[in-house]
Amino acid sequence: MTKKLPKLQVALDHSTMSDAVKAASLVGNEVDIIEAGTVCLLQVGSELVEILSKLFPNKTIVADTKCADAGGTVALNNAKKGADWMTCICSATIPTMKAALKAIKEERGDQGEIQVELYGDWTFEEAQKWLDIGIEQAIYHQSRDALLDGESWGEKDLSKVKKLIDMGFRVSVTGGLSVETLKLFKGIDVYTFIAGRSLTEAEDPLSAAREFKDEIKRIWG
Amino acid sequence: MTKKLPKLQVALDHSTMSDAVKAASLVGNEVDIIEAGTVCLLQVGSELVEILSKLFPNKTIVADTKCADAGGTVALNNAKKGADWMTCICSATIPTMKAALKAIKEERGDQGEIQVELYGDWTFEEAQKWLDIGIEQAIYHQSRDALLDGESWGEKDLSKVKKLIDMGFRVSVTGGLSVETLKLFKGIDVYTFIAGRSLTEAEDPLSAAREFKDEIKRIWG
Repeated sequence: MTKKLPKLQVALDHSTMSDAVKAASLVGNEVDIIEAGTVCLLQVGSELVEILSKLFPNKTIVADTKCADAGGTVALNNAKKGADWMTCICSATIPTMKAALKAIKEERGDQGEIQVELYGDWTFEEAQKWLDIGIEQAIYHQSRDALLDGESWGEKDLSKVKKLIDMGFRVSVTGGLSVETLKLFKGIDVYTFIAGRSLTEAEDPLSAAREFKDEIKRIWG
Repeated sequence: MTKKLPKLQVALDHSTMSDAVKAASLVGNEVDIIEAGTVCLLQVGSELVEILSKLFPNKTIVADTKCADAGGTVALNNAKKGADWMTCICSATIPTMKAALKAIKEERGDQGEIQVELYGDWTFEEAQKWLDIGIEQAIYHQSRDALLDGESWGEKDLSKVKKLIDMGFRVSVTGGLSVETLKLFKGIDVYTFIAGRSLTEAEDPLSAAREFKDEIKRIWG
């Protein structure tokens, strides 16, 4: 019997196309999922998605738009560039999420998915509504700014992650993750670990990605 | 004594640079504020902000990033391109908003401002926290997708707008606005009306902008 190992996703949150593409080229073959991060999308636009999908046609490509409105348009724009998945912010309305899901599935078929990014004061009642319209993925996020402000992963976060999984979501986690913090999630069926700088700014990004994957195998294998 | 008239802002939510710049060129001199919309920023990146600020150096330029994280980086990136104001989504954490406000003021001085975009289930308690950290502007939003789904402006919306103004915010309103709907807001000190397609997709965008301004003068003048 094969266990389902958590996947590894790299987030490219650089402020220039060249830095993002360089980082992708270093770790792209080792990770499962490559994310065009919000900071970078806002700087360089969806051409980044197009470049990533051409460089890595066999990897899942995520457009981390954190879409809050005009879901159909944003999803279509990104799906056309090759995005398999796209994120919506949790405070987007249900019609926005519905429109995004419809557009990405129309363009990308079954592999097209919407992920809800959890920030601020979302509720499990809202989360149930996302499931009800067919959204299967959520991203539990420790905000970078909150981390800089001294907050970190704790039991409160982990119990929310577990509850979301119990509800039926595939849950990705992100924010301040390192090889050392993975063991905090032991016993939890995390779908994907998303790492940014701890991979891309490592002295040896490829080795850093392999260490992440080895640690995932050690804990969940 | 001069009354403070509500301002007029055009939102450029096109999916290509050429369409956005064309629309800006048609109405930019008539409006007070020019917004690089989220849909377009995600498509073409912050070069749009740079172009708008060079084309219209005497207008206020807004980068509608709906920033949810990495507030300092996103604000700095956009301020460097010439954005005077930048939006944060209401579900962003306080550290994100603080970082964004600090970065935009450092780069743009007093004219640098952060606007909180209200989507989903925000609370007035949260809004007070935004005021407490020095954010003075909020954007009350009827989601485009919600409008398509049949929702519209009602007394519930207007009373929330009034309450935000009473709390001390300068409040912009947006979503499905036309010259005809402006009178719904009579008696309310709206700071800015934000219109997108009703200006840019009008048969004569410049005339449409003038009609908006004339109606604003008629009601609030």
